[in-house]
Amino acid sequence: MILAKVVGRIVSNQKSVELTGSKLLLVQKIDRHEKLREDVHVAIDRVGAGSGDVVLVGEWSVPESRNIYQDNMSIIAIVEKIQNDE
Amino acid sequence: MILAKVVGRIVSNQKSVELTGSKLLLVQKIDRHEKLREDVHVAIDRVGAGSGDVVLVGEWSVPESRNIYQDNMSIIAIVEKIQNDE
Amino acid sequence: MILAKVVGRIVSNQKSVELTGSKLLLVQKIDRHEKLREDVHVAIDRVGAGSGDVVLVGEWSVPESRNIYQDNMSIIAIVEKIQNDE
Amino acid sequence: MILAKVVGRIVSNQKSVELTGSKLLLVQKIDRHEKLREDVHVAIDRVGAGSGDVVLVGEWSVPESRNIYQDNMSIIAIVEKIQNDE
Amino acid sequence: MILAKVVGRIVSNQKSVELTGSKLLLVQKIDRHEKLREDVHVAIDRVGAGSGDVVLVGEWSVPESRNIYQDNMSIIAIVEKIQNDE
Repeated sequence: MILAKVVGRIVSNQKSVELTGSKLLLVQKIDRHEKLREDVHVAIDRVGAGSGDVVLVGEWSVPESRNIYQDNMSIIAIVEKIQNDE
Repeated sequence: MILAKVVGRIVSNQKSVELTGSKLLLVQKIDRHEKLREDVHVAIDRVGAGSGDVVLVGEWSVPESRNIYQDNMSIIAIVEKIQNDE
Repeated sequence: MILAKVVGRIVSNQKSVELTGSKLLLVQKIDRHEKLREDVHVAIDRVGAGSGDVVLVGEWSVPESRNIYQDNMSIIAIVEKIQNDE
Repeated sequence: MILAKVVGRIVSNQKSVELTGSKLLLVQKIDRHEKLREDVHVAIDRVGAGSGDVVLVGEWSVPESRNIYQDNMSIIAIVEKIQNDE
Repeated sequence: MILAKVVGRIVSNQKSVELTGSKLLLVQKIDRHEKLREDVHVAIDRVGAGSGDVVLVGEWSVPESRNIYQDNMSIIAIVEKIQNDE
């Protein structure tokens, strides 16, 4: 999983069925000192994240229909604290 | 999922069976200000996207035959607006 | 999926069972103007590709044995034309 | 799998159900001479790893619920020695 | 799949159950002229590879327990010759 910061949102009406009702957030990768990196992704929110939150982003595999799977990048945790030990 | 822009199309007659009938679009990664980045991919269109559209690209796992799966990069949404909060 | 060019072949006698009989081609990533990039991969040919061909490379998940899957990079289409719209 | 060093820990209360009770460690990629590289990830500890340990990080696919899978980056081994042969 | 060279071995006693008895080799990515690149990975040997061998590295998905899968990077072929056509 990667550390990222929520930096915006995606507005889309024309999308595949399994995305219906999903909140699509714009997340930007951060390093362990919360400095923004170049990589930007779109992730489905699964934990009630909002703009400015530091989050954990992982992959989900969701069935679209019989035997067809879609891999979705998802926000799976809101990070309260990054504890750096060295 | 990544943000990308449709920049062209792939013409192919000799392809594997599960690609038959698929529209193969050329997509180029963009950053959150819609600036084109270096990464170029080919994605199967699943939402009626066309040249110039800003799109969301994800992975689909489709059964080719009994117990054999193919992971296809697919366009799963057309983006109307990228809302940048910071 | 990525765009690549077939630039060679791999000779291997000592390989895992599910690769037996597979033609292993050396493919090098290209950009949308067919310029060679640094990334080199080995892909199983599934469409009769040969040296110099521009191809589409994707991932296949093939069962090795009961409940064990192997993800193989495979050539899934020969590209006749890359149509650049911008 | 990649070689990494445990450099910290993630504190999170608001997370998806399947992460409940998991120890989330901050790992930084290392090269074969144990020099730290740029890539930082968050991994679920499965072997009792702690801060400063050199570890092996791999991917696990865990069912979240019926037919929905989550891919988790996990620490699957503590490395005692990296034996460099050349 | 990627081309790599076996450059060492990993010694680990504390590891997850499904790695028990596996030979863990240190592999470094090479280009098509066998020049070493920066990327270093750890792969499970499945074909009897040893130090100095040029090998093919792929991904395996192995069941850890009921419905839980682990993706392991594995050595799936020993390369005798890289035939460069251009």
